[in-house]
Amino acid sequence: MENNLYQQRRAAVAAALPARKLDCLLVAFSPNLRYLSGFTGSNGALLILAGQSVLFTDPRYRTQASQESTCKIRICKGPLVMDLLATLAKTGVKRIGYEPARMTCDTFQSIQSRLPMRASLEPVTGWIEELRMLKSAAEIALIRRSVATNSRAFEQTMTRVKPGMRECDLAAELEYRMRRLGAEKPSFETIVAAGVRSALPHAQPTAARLSPGDLVVVDMGAFQEGYASDMTRMLSVGAPTAKVRRMYRAVLEAQLAAIEAVRPGVTTASVDAAARRVLAGYGLDHCFIHSTGHGLGLEIHEPPRLGKRDRHRLRPGMAITIEPGAYIEGFGGVRIEDTVLVTETGCEILTPTPKDLRVV
Amino acid sequence: MENNLYQQRRAAVAAALPARKLDCLLVAFSPNLRYLSGFTGSNGALLILAGQSVLFTDPRYRTQASQESTCKIRICKGPLVMDLLATLAKTGVKRIGYEPARMTCDTFQSIQSRLPMRASLEPVTGWIEELRMLKSAAEIALIRRSVATNSRAFEQTMTRVKPGMRECDLAAELEYRMRRLGAEKPSFETIVAAGVRSALPHAQPTAARLSPGDLVVVDMGAFQEGYASDMTRMLSVGAPTAKVRRMYRAVLEAQLAAIEAVRPGVTTASVDAAARRVLAGYGLDHCFIHSTGHGLGLEIHEPPRLGKRDRHRLRPGMAITIEPGAYIEGFGGVRIEDTVLVTETGCEILTPTPKDLRVV
Repeated sequence: MENNLYQQRRAAVAAALPARKLDCLLVAFSPNLRYLSGFTGSNGALLILAGQSVLFTDPRYRTQASQESTCKIRICKGPLVMDLLATLAKTGVKRIGYEPARMTCDTFQSIQSRLPMRASLEPVTGWIEELRMLKSAAEIALIRRSVATNSRAFEQTMTRVKPGMRECDLAAELEYRMRRLGAEKPSFETIVAAGVRSALPHAQPTAARLSPGDLVVVDMGAFQEGYASDMTRMLSVGAPTAKVRRMYRAVLEAQLAAIEAVRPGVTTASVDAAARRVLAGYGLDHCFIHSTGHGLGLEIHEPPRLGKRDRHRLRPGMAITIEPGAYIEGFGGVRIEDTVLVTETGCEILTPTPKDLRVV
Repeated sequence: MENNLYQQRRAAVAAALPARKLDCLLVAFSPNLRYLSGFTGSNGALLILAGQSVLFTDPRYRTQASQESTCKIRICKGPLVMDLLATLAKTGVKRIGYEPARMTCDTFQSIQSRLPMRASLEPVTGWIEELRMLKSAAEIALIRRSVATNSRAFEQTMTRVKPGMRECDLAAELEYRMRRLGAEKPSFETIVAAGVRSALPHAQPTAARLSPGDLVVVDMGAFQEGYASDMTRMLSVGAPTAKVRRMYRAVLEAQLAAIEAVRPGVTTASVDAAARRVLAGYGLDHCFIHSTGHGLGLEIHEPPRLGKRDRHRLRPGMAITIEPGAYIEGFGGVRIEDTVLVTETGCEILTPTPKDLRVV
């Protein structure tokens, strides 16, 4: 990503400080830190002040930080908090914004107890996350690429799937393909769950083998240049039974109805309701035990959430998943998921992979 | 792991509550939660009371939680905190231990503001982490297996490495092999850094190709059944120069000296000092910009830390890494790392991989 993009973001945050009655903002949560500085190391803190921003990290990241970020960089020998406090004292700032949803009680205490005279920590909730919800053209391009890599990895792997394969080997193959196609890593632990285990929405792959009659959930995503993709597709080992076909049709209709409902101005709850309505028609709404989707970007799960009670309004530039499912304990589960971009007029389905139930 | 092991751990914690003047302990940090309950889901909280323990999670994990844990399980429709507070109110506990190093300010506030009358949140620091430092026989067996998988994946991959290969493809291959050998995932982002990039201790693999004359750092680890391994080995593309050979010898001697220093009763700082002393003899101590090692187990980095100022005393049953390095900006870096077990008489090097500089 262009370095001036990070500068622009920091400038926008700095310009909005007075309206929030803040003198500076402290950001240490890694996705927010990356969004505002470009820095990808595992240990860092960013202080955004009116005039400039300072990035604190440790000696391991000296070279990397200066390559990734145009911020002023301070290399700290001990805990970052100590150098941070010294800088706060020097600049004389009074009202210091911090992210209570992202800071541990310990770190808060450690800063709080050593604050300069008359300085105070002021909670800031969801500010950077809200900025991150609306993706720029550059970010959308990265998400598209991540989605394309993910789908290509799926297609390449499908040519090798056969009955008798272990869940964990299928997952390994999917992740290997993503990596070879340019992903840094999976955006979450790849789910491959066969047979009755497909009814566990978040099952980890085991050594169980794909057996005749199994329904198989494949839920996978990539991180590429830091941006996430997310997709779920279903396999059937051998011809699906009538019960499976009906369940599949129900979830597919629910997913299409939810996508149909995506457009600027509607609430995320209404998208969720569209999926639930279809499943209710099949008597399967009680089997849909999670929300319809979530935003994604620098995190695999980020706002907005698309659940029953979520009142976010969709806006153009949001990247979200649409992933209803139905799960019957002791039988199996079906989930179908695409990554979708909210546009000016409705939405664009980014995921190119066909949505048929694949018989292997 | 045997389910009664988790029960024993919870019983030990429950029995120690009165001495800490606590009525219960709240644990939500995932490695601590897993250590005490067996539950591996991404969303959970455990309340350890004198009589029983309650595990809170959401509907996605209903089946998984009951399979993984013998705790009483409560499935929460909304935020776990709400059901947790209801349980606290019902049990009438007064002093509730929480982990301030693991809890966000938001969660703390959310609980604090709704506490039953006369109940209070009491900080508990490092208790479970301290228990986790000393590995049981079952845990050591799992770490051994993770280490063996990791080393085998390295050996399998080495047969395929050749000049011209991209860093990212070598990393993909290593991770694929680990997976196929039974690992769930890498225990951290595999580092493959060639040429001048080898001087960045935490470099992510890029599309750069292994070129003649390159030093290549390969730092890799697996998670298998939840337990971590960690190893660093070095490659040289073509015959190494005299300068590289000297640097390699220095780091290898430092690593052996540090391992030699590992035994029960010594401080972690003294192990670190042993490595630094050797590097100083080569004039390379200023090039060693991180600590000598760290504990590992359910996390890739856990106590004890083996840095300059760390005064932990080593005890039998601790699993640690020994990984000194030397980094010269614009030239390259060398790091050599084993996973090591502290024994009654000294230590056992778990990592079986030979420590020679491999020429490819």
